[in-house]
Amino acid sequence: MSILVVGSAALDTVETPMGKVRDEIGGSAIYFSAIASLYTKVNLVAVVGTDFPREKIQFLEERGVDTRGLQVVDGNTFRWSGRYDYMSNITETLDTKLNVFADFHPVLPEGYEKSDFVFLANIDPDLQREVLEQIPGARLTMMDTMDFWIENKQESLIRTMSMVDIVTMNEGEARLLGKTESILTAAKGILELGPDMVIIKRGEYGCAKVDEGGYFTAPACLLEKVKDPTGAGDTFAGGFLGYLRQVDDMSETTIRRAMIHGCATASFTVEEFGVERLRTLTTEEITKRYQEFYNFSHLHDW
Amino acid sequence: MSILVVGSAALDTVETPMGKVRDEIGGSAIYFSAIASLYTKVNLVAVVGTDFPREKIQFLEERGVDTRGLQVVDGNTFRWSGRYDYMSNITETLDTKLNVFADFHPVLPEGYEKSDFVFLANIDPDLQREVLEQIPGARLTMMDTMDFWIENKQESLIRTMSMVDIVTMNEGEARLLGKTESILTAAKGILELGPDMVIIKRGEYGCAKVDEGGYFTAPACLLEKVKDPTGAGDTFAGGFLGYLRQVDDMSETTIRRAMIHGCATASFTVEEFGVERLRTLTTEEITKRYQEFYNFSHLHDW
Repeated sequence: MSILVVGSAALDTVETPMGKVRDEIGGSAIYFSAIASLYTKVNLVAVVGTDFPREKIQFLEERGVDTRGLQVVDGNTFRWSGRYDYMSNITETLDTKLNVFADFHPVLPEGYEKSDFVFLANIDPDLQREVLEQIPGARLTMMDTMDFWIENKQESLIRTMSMVDIVTMNEGEARLLGKTESILTAAKGILELGPDMVIIKRGEYGCAKVDEGGYFTAPACLLEKVKDPTGAGDTFAGGFLGYLRQVDDMSETTIRRAMIHGCATASFTVEEFGVERLRTLTTEEITKRYQEFYNFSHLHDW
Repeated sequence: MSILVVGSAALDTVETPMGKVRDEIGGSAIYFSAIASLYTKVNLVAVVGTDFPREKIQFLEERGVDTRGLQVVDGNTFRWSGRYDYMSNITETLDTKLNVFADFHPVLPEGYEKSDFVFLANIDPDLQREVLEQIPGARLTMMDTMDFWIENKQESLIRTMSMVDIVTMNEGEARLLGKTESILTAAKGILELGPDMVIIKRGEYGCAKVDEGGYFTAPACLLEKVKDPTGAGDTFAGGFLGYLRQVDDMSETTIRRAMIHGCATASFTVEEFGVERLRTLTTEEITKRYQEFYNFSHLHDW
């Protein structure tokens, strides 16, 4: 009963209207694990260089994240540098240095293959398939992606999409892939590729799920201060899959609850730079925010 | 038991990715009336030129809209020409000809002063106050505005805001007025000016209400085809205020239901160019879509 996550571990330099941080730990696998570990056991696969400050992810190990899959390779950790504009939902990538991430191939340590849920964070779709091949018994698989793979490796991306249960991406990416302004049309196109469910992330507006039965929208909360949107999408996935794994039931109501958990956990991430807010986050705080989400989006209070 | 609406009547030329129409009837007061009249009695005040095709608003009269307040003045009707980009939520105004609208002063025909609800659509804030002065007994007043008045007549606008119960505007306008990226912060700033409630329209993402008790978000539906977004905001107001007037109760649940009615009615407007979809719209169709909105945004189905 655990989730395998394969993605990036990074050192991020981020500038927002609220300030700037340099070489803070980040990366999709780190953000995902920080949240999912509050719900269930997480097995992490990623790569870092010898410069990565391991002590900064000790909080993950304390939450039971298995980090044997975190490869440490001679060289420098993947570095991403970005800036968010005033409206907070546009990211400008200033610099990307793949470093040790360039030669990354995911390898599952012994025992990881027993993970029954898999989250393939945004990495090369070829590598995402390498993971799937190593874990044929997974019961639920979910993948994220980004515009770079849609533009430069679409054939491989589509092959990976056809192999997973749930595909997630943000709405700009869905429009790019579907060549349509309608995220509903775009999501239906993705469903035709094979997955059972598509979740479109809409930044400060929440997210929408599309499947055979129709669609569901989950809201985001209104925030007065967004310090740093980095990692919001990966923590959404962490809350969503973490909750699903914990409850272990794929009913429509559970999936809807899981989406609200995803949006609620993501709302903590953006309150501080990097993973700072997530270090001290508790299950009680998540439960409280979940109820707030329910109350500001439902006709009747909790 | 009726709603007074004061706003524009126009001939719109609109281009969207789905096509183009020329000199179609439009304007905030027309769109508002088309929907609100499905809920309650509407008294309309606006101005048109002698070129306005009166037969095209006969459907409003058949729904009981009192059009004695529609002044017909020698000259041409207000004309707006605009284009919507691919993503459908950015409007480019190509041309505006105020024509007879330039010298408009709202005059309430006899009996209109008994309207207990008032909607001041987007017009000069000086004129909005002229209306308020003519109808001191109104029980509920709501106003809309636009970036032009925020930029060019802010002092007058703020004075009008201080006199109404509900202020609505879109999120770009709220950010412009509040000089903040947070629509929650912007809305709180508006509440300090006097109104009891602020409703921020968020286009394809629905809307958010902010008042003393907190906030509520209502979603929009996912559409595969948006033919023409013109009038969506005014029909939101028509569904919202129309429902409130019909139910005549200002409980939190009623206000939330009214917001969903507003979003549901607006979703019909954008399905066709101009007011075409609204001509044949029925109460039964609205009720059905309201339930769809409930179902795609609530944990449990209707």
